[in-house]
Amino acid sequence: MEPLANEKSPNQTNRSQNIPVATVTRLALYLRELQQLKRAGLQRIQSGAIAKRLGLNDSQVRRDLSCFGQFGQRGVGYNIAGLTQAIQSIMGTDRSWNVILVGAGNLGRALSGYRGFDQQGFRLVAVFDCSDEIIGTKVGKLVVKSLDSLDEIVSANQVELAIVAVPAEAASIVSQRLESAGITGILNFAPVTVRRPNSSLTVVDVDLAVELQRLAFAVVNSKGS
Amino acid sequence: MEPLANEKSPNQTNRSQNIPVATVTRLALYLRELQQLKRAGLQRIQSGAIAKRLGLNDSQVRRDLSCFGQFGQRGVGYNIAGLTQAIQSIMGTDRSWNVILVGAGNLGRALSGYRGFDQQGFRLVAVFDCSDEIIGTKVGKLVVKSLDSLDEIVSANQVELAIVAVPAEAASIVSQRLESAGITGILNFAPVTVRRPNSSLTVVDVDLAVELQRLAFAVVNSKGS
Repeated sequence: MEPLANEKSPNQTNRSQNIPVATVTRLALYLRELQQLKRAGLQRIQSGAIAKRLGLNDSQVRRDLSCFGQFGQRGVGYNIAGLTQAIQSIMGTDRSWNVILVGAGNLGRALSGYRGFDQQGFRLVAVFDCSDEIIGTKVGKLVVKSLDSLDEIVSANQVELAIVAVPAEAASIVSQRLESAGITGILNFAPVTVRRPNSSLTVVDVDLAVELQRLAFAVVNSKGS
Repeated sequence: MEPLANEKSPNQTNRSQNIPVATVTRLALYLRELQQLKRAGLQRIQSGAIAKRLGLNDSQVRRDLSCFGQFGQRGVGYNIAGLTQAIQSIMGTDRSWNVILVGAGNLGRALSGYRGFDQQGFRLVAVFDCSDEIIGTKVGKLVVKSLDSLDEIVSANQVELAIVAVPAEAASIVSQRLESAGITGILNFAPVTVRRPNSSLTVVDVDLAVELQRLAFAVVNSKGS
């Protein structure tokens, strides 16, 4: 993913580990493939097979995984279990994370049931909304709460991450509330920038319309070539 | 966004326009901000103000917009209407696109109601599912259809783009069906790679768990710095 547009600070991922954001995205994709292979009962895989599954170049995969060399062996491939664990450790997903969701509209409800989050160790502990009509209703097994109980729940559950799926006009005030409550990272689905100067909040934006525009651009530019 | 992991071909966007994928993503974000400013009644904006809204560097914004020089004037800023139109023309969104959605589960239903798509000229013309329990039910104003009518609807509506929100295990076969039906671009929400060798299909992947992992990584690595 593109660092400048999507991360609070272009060099934030370079501080302690020196891994560019683009590589982080690929590591997450390797992890996804490795976990699928592991579930399928495989024990080893060659870099070329990972590359093929993801539509990448073999040399790119080998370069990305070069720091995990102890799990690879020429001709035999990588030890799937060992490599999985090593990537999870780098990514910070070798532990579980308590996550809250703010915004229980259609998108929020869909995100709350997204199985992929759980599979990667992200545990949804509470859902919030500011609409009186939605507060008190159920989202999966959770009862939607008012933002009045935000501080208490964040602190009691040591929550660090929040998924924000509120309308654009509410996103900025919600992110301020989250930061005051002690949240350090936001996955922002609101089609608006929520970062503010001097904030230590880490924000990753997912704008679904931007993704569809990228697709349109790619389709237009692949024609007649 | 990261070109290698998300696009079918790393250099596909370089064929006719020479614009890297990272820049395309930023152009889409500029467009979003310009449209908001236009709705708010503004006519001109300085590059520095755009940069601040998006958390980017002023010089980055000026570099990206340098090819749209005729809409900018030192000290006066950019003409919002002219710049909007010029970016839309580059992005291929100065026209409307007919789009279909495959997969009417929770995520699919949420995506079908996502206002941002419509605002950027993407018109949802049909929703498909393969479950007999879902076919025939309503998603917004549309009745969910069987994939049996895919070819007919794609051809009748000149549909080029599809949003895929099916389970991982169905994604590959669905994308093959879509390509046979004449779809040229897929926005893929299934947590799996659907690209195949020798396919001319353009694929942009959005893996929500990968985004959350990127956030976890960024939070871990911003600590103690």
